[in-house]
Amino acid sequence: MSKEITSRTGGDYSKWYNDIVSKAGLAENSPVRGCMVIKPHGFAIWEKMRDQLDKMFKDTGHVNAYFPLFIPKSFLSKEAAHVEGFAKECAVVTHYRLKKDPNGSGVIVDPDAKLEEELIVRPTSETIIWDTYRGWIKSYRDLPLLINQWANVVRWEMRTRPFLRTAEFLWQEGHTAHSTSQEAIAEAEQMLEVYADFAEKFMAMPVIRGRKTANERFAGAVDTYCIESLMQDGKALQAGTSHFLGQNFAKAFDVKFLTKENKEEYVWATSWGVSTRLIGALIMTHSDDDGLVLPPKLAPIQVVIVPIPKPTPEIAEAAEKIMKALKAKGISVKYDKDDQKRPGFKFAEYEMIGVPVRIGIGARDLAAGKVEVARRDTKEKMSVALEDIDDYIKKLLKDIQSNLFERAKKYREEHTTKVDDFDTFKQVLDGKGGFILAHWDGTTETEEKIKELTKATIRCIPLDSKLEKGTCVLTGKPSTQRVLFARAY
Amino acid sequence: MSKEITSRTGGDYSKWYNDIVSKAGLAENSPVRGCMVIKPHGFAIWEKMRDQLDKMFKDTGHVNAYFPLFIPKSFLSKEAAHVEGFAKECAVVTHYRLKKDPNGSGVIVDPDAKLEEELIVRPTSETIIWDTYRGWIKSYRDLPLLINQWANVVRWEMRTRPFLRTAEFLWQEGHTAHSTSQEAIAEAEQMLEVYADFAEKFMAMPVIRGRKTANERFAGAVDTYCIESLMQDGKALQAGTSHFLGQNFAKAFDVKFLTKENKEEYVWATSWGVSTRLIGALIMTHSDDDGLVLPPKLAPIQVVIVPIPKPTPEIAEAAEKIMKALKAKGISVKYDKDDQKRPGFKFAEYEMIGVPVRIGIGARDLAAGKVEVARRDTKEKMSVALEDIDDYIKKLLKDIQSNLFERAKKYREEHTTKVDDFDTFKQVLDGKGGFILAHWDGTTETEEKIKELTKATIRCIPLDSKLEKGTCVLTGKPSTQRVLFARAY
Repeated sequence: MSKEITSRTGGDYSKWYNDIVSKAGLAENSPVRGCMVIKPHGFAIWEKMRDQLDKMFKDTGHVNAYFPLFIPKSFLSKEAAHVEGFAKECAVVTHYRLKKDPNGSGVIVDPDAKLEEELIVRPTSETIIWDTYRGWIKSYRDLPLLINQWANVVRWEMRTRPFLRTAEFLWQEGHTAHSTSQEAIAEAEQMLEVYADFAEKFMAMPVIRGRKTANERFAGAVDTYCIESLMQDGKALQAGTSHFLGQNFAKAFDVKFLTKENKEEYVWATSWGVSTRLIGALIMTHSDDDGLVLPPKLAPIQVVIVPIPKPTPEIAEAAEKIMKALKAKGISVKYDKDDQKRPGFKFAEYEMIGVPVRIGIGARDLAAGKVEVARRDTKEKMSVALEDIDDYIKKLLKDIQSNLFERAKKYREEHTTKVDDFDTFKQVLDGKGGFILAHWDGTTETEEKIKELTKATIRCIPLDSKLEKGTCVLTGKPSTQRVLFARAY
Repeated sequence: MSKEITSRTGGDYSKWYNDIVSKAGLAENSPVRGCMVIKPHGFAIWEKMRDQLDKMFKDTGHVNAYFPLFIPKSFLSKEAAHVEGFAKECAVVTHYRLKKDPNGSGVIVDPDAKLEEELIVRPTSETIIWDTYRGWIKSYRDLPLLINQWANVVRWEMRTRPFLRTAEFLWQEGHTAHSTSQEAIAEAEQMLEVYADFAEKFMAMPVIRGRKTANERFAGAVDTYCIESLMQDGKALQAGTSHFLGQNFAKAFDVKFLTKENKEEYVWATSWGVSTRLIGALIMTHSDDDGLVLPPKLAPIQVVIVPIPKPTPEIAEAAEKIMKALKAKGISVKYDKDDQKRPGFKFAEYEMIGVPVRIGIGARDLAAGKVEVARRDTKEKMSVALEDIDDYIKKLLKDIQSNLFERAKKYREEHTTKVDDFDTFKQVLDGKGGFILAHWDGTTETEEKIKELTKATIRCIPLDSKLEKGTCVLTGKPSTQRVLFARAY
């Protein structure tokens, strides 16, 4: 089975990615341009992500709600930067009825059912939510308002790829309202930290926390925080963003509150989101030529038990015991009792879908009180005594989780280069790729010129970036800190 | 606070319903026609429902997946009855871009961005899913395929009411594929039973299991099973449906499989769904003039602790202990430490949002080792010893859950009438209302005539309906069993 996928290192990383998405049963293209079908295995991973994130949002005081899919066209125009950012990729509903085609057998759009005002399928929900918040916020007592929404959104992208960029995608969008600027900024920073925590501790994906440049900011934000991660092909991927929106949307939708001092003020806002794109990031952080590699904390099945060569009553009995012991420790486990497929075929299959640990049970091993344990990340195989199996596996899952993180971190460190001149800048990009830490003169003009010349963008100004005098890698103008460049997804 | 809502029994049940939706913070209308905003408390109830249903679906072998929001217009036409049923209420996407209005300040739909084929916002997903299944099903080994989707759908209803009938709503739709007709029928029946179980054991809402008449069947189904419940105003509400689709969609989308005998056959299908409408059903089954009444199993907060008259360190300490003991028993509990609002105000507030149990802690009671416990369903108050509080509350929640079910069942029994002549039929409908069990001659013509004359429809042919000779309540023609009539939501 593994033979079927393109080699990751053979050059066509993009084809390797598509093969993983397809062969691991994660998603497939649909007949609707740019929209994907998320298949059961892909959706099971999303459920694990969603449940963990949802817990983290609730632990930080947020509640869920649901706002309409449709946004009146006029709402988009109320915030100038926002409409500028989204108008070009909007799916527009213009009619509300079909009718029989009088000249054919199918249906046509009923011209009599034209909407007075067109509706936009939400690309993001700031406008409809802030229009709603106007009715909810009257006084400082109504603040902070800490709401999250799990939803589908649509952005009519011209070039799409499963998970990474699709016309429709699933995401969560937090929309909070605050009485002070400081509190809103603290919220935006807190949620960035929640995302970074999730990425590092659950996805085993190291991230750089930073701020976007003015040019790369969310349409309507005063400040955009982001986490950036590095994929195995040396390209960066923005994994999550958290925006301080200032009073922009409060002003656009006239949302004011009475302060304790009885003064009327506009409300301060944040919004923050991550999406099914994270599944793409997960694939490109850990997987290999044998298929998907999943961190144990996000694996729908953590352990699979395979009888060797075929199920027997003794093996089934041993498997039952192991399953019981593992489940008692909160480990998800499956026993593959199929008696048609050969073990080698099953091994390849479970490697392809990324099950972190495989336990092989054969008659001879069993007689000796042992089983064979194989880990997906390193492909190592160990002989383990049955009596210790639950503790062993529990520790092993922990080891795999941390090994994946350390491996990805090492890769990132090896692919992060400080560069001080433009020739080297280009050489690194075309050579080993990865992140480049370089000085920049702070202008959008230079940022865009560099992008035009190299396709590299400023991923972020890292939060931990130290002040350091230097000169812009392109213009030689003075700079006070390095920023993070990369070619990106 | 309770004074603010319209009386349920005073005549305007509809206004009472809207008041509950609004005052209990469940939902509100949005600026988008027919679309609602589901507010945090309403959404928290939906989350409880969703999590429980999701567990029941997984326990019966189903997995989740996600299919596109948009359906190509031509797909709808492929199944004749299906398009007939949905064409008149479709939101249609015709364009994919906006642009600046050259004659104004806003944005207009860019006429150059017209889609070649219009896209329908899914009113239900049979068509896109069966188009996808064609690629997934080749042999009997690929069957059964047991998939569920949690999603938003849009049906452009002309008259809408929060939860009961909205243009956009949240739901789940199961879509399964089978190799035999018997297996598909068994699946449709199994899922009806899952819904009935959920309604009765979690919503505390008794339901009648039945089959729809041909006239009321889902567009594209061979047979539609349903659960029907009775609201407090004597009107029926369809709470869930499960369809045996025969080979209709397999034929429309050319989905065939190779049998064990190597013969090519069309696949058999089911689909089944429940929606946020269940929240409307929940409201109208249990609530009263003081607000929402929730069955403990679906209450986001099961117990609230209110200090009387104000929080003190001693009360806080006692509350901490109680919370710890209740949480250890898996009970969700909140301590209201607000020191501004008076107890009476808080009592009304928690009654309004339907918290099943309230514990009041006052200094004098506390000194005597006691607290006051009030149940939301009957408004009874009890003095309970602190030492037994966890066991007491656990049992009380169980009692409330079963009391709500029994109360609703008793109401339904009192409002189910066997009727044998048309005058009585009309009198019962206009009098006490409720379900009517009457004979019907089996024709769509009679069914529609009765509807025209009385606004009552055949809710279902109950599964437990016994064969019994009789004559049609309208036409006097012979009939072999009674069917269930009611006016309905």
